[in-house]
Amino acid sequence: MYYVDTNIRVRYAETDQMGFVYYGVYPQYYEVGRVELLRSLSLPYKKLEDMGYWLPVVNLEVNYKKPALYDDLITVRTIIKEMPSSKIVFYYKIFNQKEDLLNTGNVSLAFMNKITKKVCSPPDIILDQLGSKL
Amino acid sequence: MYYVDTNIRVRYAETDQMGFVYYGVYPQYYEVGRVELLRSLSLPYKKLEDMGYWLPVVNLEVNYKKPALYDDLITVRTIIKEMPSSKIVFYYKIFNQKEDLLNTGNVSLAFMNKITKKVCSPPDIILDQLGSKL
Amino acid sequence: MYYVDTNIRVRYAETDQMGFVYYGVYPQYYEVGRVELLRSLSLPYKKLEDMGYWLPVVNLEVNYKKPALYDDLITVRTIIKEMPSSKIVFYYKIFNQKEDLLNTGNVSLAFMNKITKKVCSPPDIILDQLGSKL
Amino acid sequence: MYYVDTNIRVRYAETDQMGFVYYGVYPQYYEVGRVELLRSLSLPYKKLEDMGYWLPVVNLEVNYKKPALYDDLITVRTIIKEMPSSKIVFYYKIFNQKEDLLNTGNVSLAFMNKITKKVCSPPDIILDQLGSKL
Repeated sequence: MYYVDTNIRVRYAETDQMGFVYYGVYPQYYEVGRVELLRSLSLPYKKLEDMGYWLPVVNLEVNYKKPALYDDLITVRTIIKEMPSSKIVFYYKIFNQKEDLLNTGNVSLAFMNKITKKVCSPPDIILDQLGSKL
Repeated sequence: MYYVDTNIRVRYAETDQMGFVYYGVYPQYYEVGRVELLRSLSLPYKKLEDMGYWLPVVNLEVNYKKPALYDDLITVRTIIKEMPSSKIVFYYKIFNQKEDLLNTGNVSLAFMNKITKKVCSPPDIILDQLGSKL
Repeated sequence: MYYVDTNIRVRYAETDQMGFVYYGVYPQYYEVGRVELLRSLSLPYKKLEDMGYWLPVVNLEVNYKKPALYDDLITVRTIIKEMPSSKIVFYYKIFNQKEDLLNTGNVSLAFMNKITKKVCSPPDIILDQLGSKL
Repeated sequence: MYYVDTNIRVRYAETDQMGFVYYGVYPQYYEVGRVELLRSLSLPYKKLEDMGYWLPVVNLEVNYKKPALYDDLITVRTIIKEMPSSKIVFYYKIFNQKEDLLNTGNVSLAFMNKITKKVCSPPDIILDQLGSKL
């Protein structure tokens, strides 16, 4: 298991009239989390795109327990449990500043060749980097 | 089974630099779909809030097959399969104008009393309306 | 003067915890309005991109008078007053279903060649279409 | 003049299919900037709401010069030039990590009593805090 924690301050724009963060905002927070995990592997997502990869999302699941509130400083814990194949799965836990668990979830992304738009293997550098960590 | 189809035109704001609709936008489309389903039962979501209910989302799942593109006129099919208890489950299929299936998903919401913030039974009017349709 | 009215139903996602539509959502509504105006000139924005143009926004101004609320069915009035040069200016008025004026604004876009990324003249078809209407 | 700089990492969600940050995202960045400026005055916006104030936006202006790109680490410079009356004006400059000026703008907000929904004077604490800084 390998994980990275990222802090995000909740924006006013992200709340809804219940006074909670809108349920559709968490996928954005999840994106921020996995981008920072990839950066921690010296693999900024931007670089992956420059190397010719796209990582479209193929599956998303969120299990909501408690809402995040305006101005909360939340922690997105992004976790990798398995070596990626043509697919990479990120698991998530989001906590608020009181360490309440707000939600859990997971996102699966496919490795895709930007040009051919076909699913492909992950770049060796990801396998090397994760191989030593999992 | 009871379902309602809703058309949505994809906004430029909703695309990302892959040229696809961002994966985190579909929960908004799902919201639009269920609001129109509830309206078709003479139960605008706004009225539910005025009656003292909140319907926080407790679970979300999306299975992405093909991306929606800018200016697509998509159809959100929102489906109810079971009578709601303290929870109501909406199932989804999104199609583009060529009738390609773009994704499937489901969203579970809890009925909550706005004042006590406790989970509660659905209003009778929902049970009556759906009882004759399922 | 040439104008087109477009109706938009306010989404829950677009409200904030004041119970109003978040101020940063109106630029999206403005986008929807100008896309429909261009479509009314047989010039879907998508086609403009296919013809090799980008229209980046160079200026935005919004004057907020009253807030839009959840589930409001608003009307975006998109107005063209002057023939475009290398720049096209859209003027806006947004009304709610009670015909209250919610805000006024304007957005200036530049015509840009997608390849050279240089500012350029508008396509003749826009000048022809608008010439007969202004 | 008093200003505060805030760094924001551009999210994938915030890009559009031109590969730029969507023009309607900058008002969110401006919001983040003024919230951090208020926090620097020991006045988190959340506290202002708890004290009974709302600050609806009455005017927004953005002058776009260059686009922000995915993964850019931008700096939002939020500036106060004048003592607030029933209105407070924030001026903005956004820079990317290469110190290119991306856009300038300003946002005016009214002080409003949450209960009466009438425009009101700013809380003394804002005047005191700013008085010593401007």
